[in-house]
Amino acid sequence: MKPALLIIDMQNDFVLPGAPAVIHGALATVPRIKEVLEWFREKCYPVFHVVREYRADGSDIEISRREAFLAGPPYAVPGTKGVEIIDALSPITGEYRVVKPRFSAFFGTELELILRRLGVDSAVVCGTQYPNCIRATAFDALSYGYPTTVITDATSASVLAVAKSNIRDMESVGIRCISFDEFEKSPYFAFEGDCAKSRGPSLLC
Amino acid sequence: MKPALLIIDMQNDFVLPGAPAVIHGALATVPRIKEVLEWFREKCYPVFHVVREYRADGSDIEISRREAFLAGPPYAVPGTKGVEIIDALSPITGEYRVVKPRFSAFFGTELELILRRLGVDSAVVCGTQYPNCIRATAFDALSYGYPTTVITDATSASVLAVAKSNIRDMESVGIRCISFDEFEKSPYFAFEGDCAKSRGPSLLC
Repeated sequence: MKPALLIIDMQNDFVLPGAPAVIHGALATVPRIKEVLEWFREKCYPVFHVVREYRADGSDIEISRREAFLAGPPYAVPGTKGVEIIDALSPITGEYRVVKPRFSAFFGTELELILRRLGVDSAVVCGTQYPNCIRATAFDALSYGYPTTVITDATSASVLAVAKSNIRDMESVGIRCISFDEFEKSPYFAFEGDCAKSRGPSLLC
Repeated sequence: MKPALLIIDMQNDFVLPGAPAVIHGALATVPRIKEVLEWFREKCYPVFHVVREYRADGSDIEISRREAFLAGPPYAVPGTKGVEIIDALSPITGEYRVVKPRFSAFFGTELELILRRLGVDSAVVCGTQYPNCIRATAFDALSYGYPTTVITDATSASVLAVAKSNIRDMESVGIRCISFDEFEKSPYFAFEGDCAKSRGPSLLC
């Protein structure tokens, strides 16, 4: 098996207290995300840091968010401190940084091309936040045929009830939503008859 | 303005009582969907009937659903009565039938290419069901830059609480979720500064 880790939007502007687009709950997940990240690093499985970047003129933000973006303090603008991944989760050499212009990490990005080339056979998602980028990414990962796991205690939402309803919906289509403890006990995930099961170990190490 | 209507998965196998993959709640929305459809027909705005089709060998169904699909009674298989759009909503000449292999009507389909060519400037979504194909389609429509409306009383889910939480999440990203009555009073939807506002009337009539 060769799972890839997709860490979504863990940037200063979305995580740090007082940031312009902070997701309440994101900061609390950082230690757990770090554990997930270390697990993938130890196994030499691919790690993707998926981030937002918006041009300051609003030309590449969702059309529904453009007016507020232009009126308010900007966020996730290239060249600022806010756009950077939080220090605790900084990428290291060999990890991938992918800029996504929309909710899903697959929408208008090179992610799927890289996953294919690496022979990745399943996706593990964490980060922020549940109803938007996490869910859109998990649905697209499943749509591309990757058995997909969301690490629930390494993923956040501004509101707990929102997290719960999204977990319910994702589970209902076959996206595995489990804690990191559960993941460690059963890290590999494939569906019955999935050819990926027969693949060999990671070739990265 | 030139909105397009996307009616999602209103096929016998998902709508009729006793069908193998019935969505409870879908049948009750048929009269309202018909009203929406007639509104679009009267205005000569584009109508898309988006449907599922699965090969009987399960090779094109979501990987998470394949095992159950092969074990249970098949559904949405081309050539069967079940795959057909329910009689009350049958397409007429000039309307589009689009087969989608995944949740979103945009995933792996020609839909966006046709919307562009037609000069469509906004999307109106209805059908079934909220947490999967409706939501994935609405998020993708917004991601492609279309101001997007979901007609709430022409859209269904198996469980009411699921419908509600999905409406909440869609509204939070700027997807307009309104009843058909509200839609009739304010059918055109654009965001501030949206160039689409200045487009002329439909050229289809």
